[in-house]
Amino acid sequence: MGIKYSQTHKVAFYESDTRGKMKISDLLAVALQISGEQSYTLDRSDTWICDNFNLFWAVIEHEVQVHRLPEFNDQITIETEATSYNKFFCYRDFIFKNTAGETLVKISSTWVLMNKDTRKVERVVDEIVAPYEAPKVSKIVRPHKYLALSDQAQCNLAFPIRFSDLDMNGHVNNAKYFDWAVDQLDYDFRMAYEPKKIYIRYNHELLYGNHEFIHPVFEFQGDTTCHIIRKDGVDNANIEIEWSKISEEN
Amino acid sequence: MGIKYSQTHKVAFYESDTRGKMKISDLLAVALQISGEQSYTLDRSDTWICDNFNLFWAVIEHEVQVHRLPEFNDQITIETEATSYNKFFCYRDFIFKNTAGETLVKISSTWVLMNKDTRKVERVVDEIVAPYEAPKVSKIVRPHKYLALSDQAQCNLAFPIRFSDLDMNGHVNNAKYFDWAVDQLDYDFRMAYEPKKIYIRYNHELLYGNHEFIHPVFEFQGDTTCHIIRKDGVDNANIEIEWSKISEEN
Repeated sequence: MGIKYSQTHKVAFYESDTRGKMKISDLLAVALQISGEQSYTLDRSDTWICDNFNLFWAVIEHEVQVHRLPEFNDQITIETEATSYNKFFCYRDFIFKNTAGETLVKISSTWVLMNKDTRKVERVVDEIVAPYEAPKVSKIVRPHKYLALSDQAQCNLAFPIRFSDLDMNGHVNNAKYFDWAVDQLDYDFRMAYEPKKIYIRYNHELLYGNHEFIHPVFEFQGDTTCHIIRKDGVDNANIEIEWSKISEEN
Repeated sequence: MGIKYSQTHKVAFYESDTRGKMKISDLLAVALQISGEQSYTLDRSDTWICDNFNLFWAVIEHEVQVHRLPEFNDQITIETEATSYNKFFCYRDFIFKNTAGETLVKISSTWVLMNKDTRKVERVVDEIVAPYEAPKVSKIVRPHKYLALSDQAQCNLAFPIRFSDLDMNGHVNNAKYFDWAVDQLDYDFRMAYEPKKIYIRYNHELLYGNHEFIHPVFEFQGDTTCHIIRKDGVDNANIEIEWSKISEEN
């Protein structure tokens, strides 16, 4: 395992949903921010990687285990470490804890280095990852196998790619995909159910396109919703969410 | 003038636009967070106000003066104070400063207390505002007079009200309106121009409506864009933005 880095965070009003729970998209955004901070402290900032190798980090998969969602005003600690890497993939965990040290949320993520110009995945460069002290392994973690969608899958809301969706990598920030998917589900469902397990696979980055719309399709398969973020017939991302009914005391 | 409260903030990756500048919608969200923190330290938290008076704070107007936008990774300080209040309105300033103490952004805002059930504005309660030590005045600050839109005003992108747009007050978070307005403007314009002065007037709150769309109309009047956030013929918000061309060295 690699060097651990941790940071505290207070859940802000604007990160809280109408029930006062921290939004999953903000959990993902904060996790990425924390890993960026670790990189900075190890002299491996995004700027350094770009200047020296013309590469940037991209997440290609998240597995999120929600034990209990952080709430508005909670003081939480986010612990992260690069756990291992191989020829193409780097693995990193994030653990969100409350002040009592209990794990609220765990994110296991898979990262690649992409070329800034070709936008293609490149081999992991040892000089970039060495300071994290994660072991190099030959094993490739088997990615989650997403349930197939039937012809019944539907899109309730199409979304344009907005300038405000873009981040400094020039593409749609990966925290945006989750909201595109779950905002297909109606208000009553969102007020009654919470995600317990989430898988997200980013297949292709999305760039700004004037007035082009994303059509996220979804369907229920038991307690799980299966989502595909689709544009022009291309599946840009797969998302699978296991929901559980919110009990009265929550 | 009232008691000052200040807080530091590091501009996160997810708060930065594709040019690396802090998003205006995040500036607004962070400002509201900071004023909420001050209220908390003065024993006037949102929960306290709701429990004791069934009221909540709502911003009805922002005037934003941008000297220079904070950038990704900048350490900034946000200073806020309640400046004065009268029968219905409370006035509060926010000043965003860099580490050298220079003012980057100033926000002057007007607030009201709304009834949680009737969703109507109520008179300011002295017991709520006393701890901020802002003077009670009879003068009402004259609100900005928004330019009228012509028949040429257009809507490029209509937006649904999403579950992820809602905050703990059960309505669309007021930081969302700005992005609805500016995301009407195309990529090339957004890359070449920056807001210098912004006026936002919130006339009516927006609640979740299944599959209902907001039609933000806008038009250019010289270097200014004039926006109305419109739904079902009601003008929910007015936004006016003075733009300036980004110089080469920025």
